[in-house]
Amino acid sequence: MFETAFTIEWGDCDEAGIVFYPNYFYWLDCTYQRWLRKHGLSQRELRRRFNSVTPLVNVAAQFVGPARYDDELVVRAEVAEWRERRFRIDYKLSVANVQVASGFEERAWASLSDTGELRGANVPPEFRELMT
Amino acid sequence: MFETAFTIEWGDCDEAGIVFYPNYFYWLDCTYQRWLRKHGLSQRELRRRFNSVTPLVNVAAQFVGPARYDDELVVRAEVAEWRERRFRIDYKLSVANVQVASGFEERAWASLSDTGELRGANVPPEFRELMT
Amino acid sequence: MFETAFTIEWGDCDEAGIVFYPNYFYWLDCTYQRWLRKHGLSQRELRRRFNSVTPLVNVAAQFVGPARYDDELVVRAEVAEWRERRFRIDYKLSVANVQVASGFEERAWASLSDTGELRGANVPPEFRELMT
Amino acid sequence: MFETAFTIEWGDCDEAGIVFYPNYFYWLDCTYQRWLRKHGLSQRELRRRFNSVTPLVNVAAQFVGPARYDDELVVRAEVAEWRERRFRIDYKLSVANVQVASGFEERAWASLSDTGELRGANVPPEFRELMT
Repeated sequence: MFETAFTIEWGDCDEAGIVFYPNYFYWLDCTYQRWLRKHGLSQRELRRRFNSVTPLVNVAAQFVGPARYDDELVVRAEVAEWRERRFRIDYKLSVANVQVASGFEERAWASLSDTGELRGANVPPEFRELMT
Repeated sequence: MFETAFTIEWGDCDEAGIVFYPNYFYWLDCTYQRWLRKHGLSQRELRRRFNSVTPLVNVAAQFVGPARYDDELVVRAEVAEWRERRFRIDYKLSVANVQVASGFEERAWASLSDTGELRGANVPPEFRELMT
Repeated sequence: MFETAFTIEWGDCDEAGIVFYPNYFYWLDCTYQRWLRKHGLSQRELRRRFNSVTPLVNVAAQFVGPARYDDELVVRAEVAEWRERRFRIDYKLSVANVQVASGFEERAWASLSDTGELRGANVPPEFRELMT
Repeated sequence: MFETAFTIEWGDCDEAGIVFYPNYFYWLDCTYQRWLRKHGLSQRELRRRFNSVTPLVNVAAQFVGPARYDDELVVRAEVAEWRERRFRIDYKLSVANVQVASGFEERAWASLSDTGELRGANVPPEFRELMT
C-alpha cells in the first residue's frame, strides 16, 4: 500500500471548474513513480538493476464526484494482482475523505534486448516483494 | 462514425521516446469535441441548446503498440452504446494503419438546475441522431 | 519571498530526457498559486475578497542547465517590482543548489465589472503587504 | 516565414474560460516542430543529418487579449535574428485576425560529442537557408 497527495492546481481544471480528466492519469502515473522512488527505484533504476521497464498495457478510471482547484487529492495505491508477467495497481482517489474516482493501471514487465527491443518477462520476486 | 488525426508532438512523448500515456486521453477528449464541432455543437452549445453537459463517468484504454514523435495518430470514434441517460464512445487509434491503442469514454447526460447543480437526464433524441 | 519545490515527473520530460520547457511555466504558475494559498488566498478568494483577478501580461524565462526526471526542482519567488496596476514576480529555479533557470511573470490587477468585464485597477495595499 | 493553426481545446483552458498560459508555449514549440517538418526535418533528423540539437535558451511572451475554447489560434513564425551560434524565432498569435499574444524563442545550435555532451556550435548555412 502506498499513499500520496497532490494539490489540484489552477491549470489542472477546465472551464467547468473541475479537473480536466486526463490529468487524473498523470497523477496515477506520478503515484506509481513516487512509490518506486520510496523504494529507491525509478524508471532509470529499473533499467539499471533489472534491465527492464514496466509499460502500461491497460488503464481505466471511474469518476464519481468532482475535484476542484485547491482541493487536496489523496491517492491510495496497492497492487491488486500479481501475474507472471504483469501486475495491476488499483487506485482510490479522494478529497476530504470523499472518494472522487477510482482506477487501475495494468503494467507488463518487459526486458530490453541488446538491440533495445522489449520482450515480455517474468516479474522478478525482488520487485514483487518491494511493492507488496 | 467520426475520424480525425493528430500529429504526435515532441512534448507529447516521454524519455523512452513514446507517448506519455495520459496524452492519449487528451486526444480522446479532443476527438469528442471535434465531433461535436462538426455538428455545430460544443460544450457551450450543449449548454445553450440543451441546458446540459456530458460529464465523463467511465474511461479505459488498452495499449498494444508504441506511438512516437512525428507519427500521425488517426483516431476513429463511434457511439457503441446508447442508454437512457448515458452513451459510450469507442475509440480506435492507429499509426500508419497499425492499431496502437483502443479505448472508450462513457459519458452521462446531465441537466443543469437553476442553482447550477447537475442532475442525470435522458439523452435527447436530437443529440442521438446527430452523433449516429 | 516564497520557496517551494516540485519533483520532476516522468511525464514532464521529453525524449531528450530533460524537462519539456512549457512545463516550467506550469510550475511558475503553481508557485504563484501556492504563495497565494499560504496567505489564505486563491484565484477564488481574490474574486471574493477583492472582486479581482491577476491576469498574466508578460512572461519570460532563461534556461541555463538541464533538469531531469526525479530531480527536485526548487523554485524561489519574490515580487521584484510593484507598480500602480501591475506587479512582477521574479523566479529562480534550481536543482541541488545549481540554478537551472530563471524567469518572471508580470501580472496585472483587474477588477470585474457587473457584466463580467475586466478593467485595470490599482493593486490594493492589503495584497501588496501580504506578498512582500 | 511559417504559419500554422491550432484549435483551442476544452482541456487547454482554465476555470476562467481562457487558455491556461503554459499551453501557449506548447504551441510555440509545436509551431517550430511543424516548421522543421515542412522542410523534411525533425528533432531526430537534426541529429541524423547535423549531429545537433537546438536547445531553448530564452523564451518570452506577451498576452494582449484572451483566447478561448473552440477558437482557431493562428501562429505566424519567422526567424528574426541569426547569430553565429543562436537564432531567434518571433511568433505572432491571433484569433480571427486579432492579435492575442506575441513571443519569441531563442534557440542555440549544439553538437553532440561522442560521449553525448552538448557543445555550442555554429548554425550550419544549410539550416539557415531552409528556415529563411
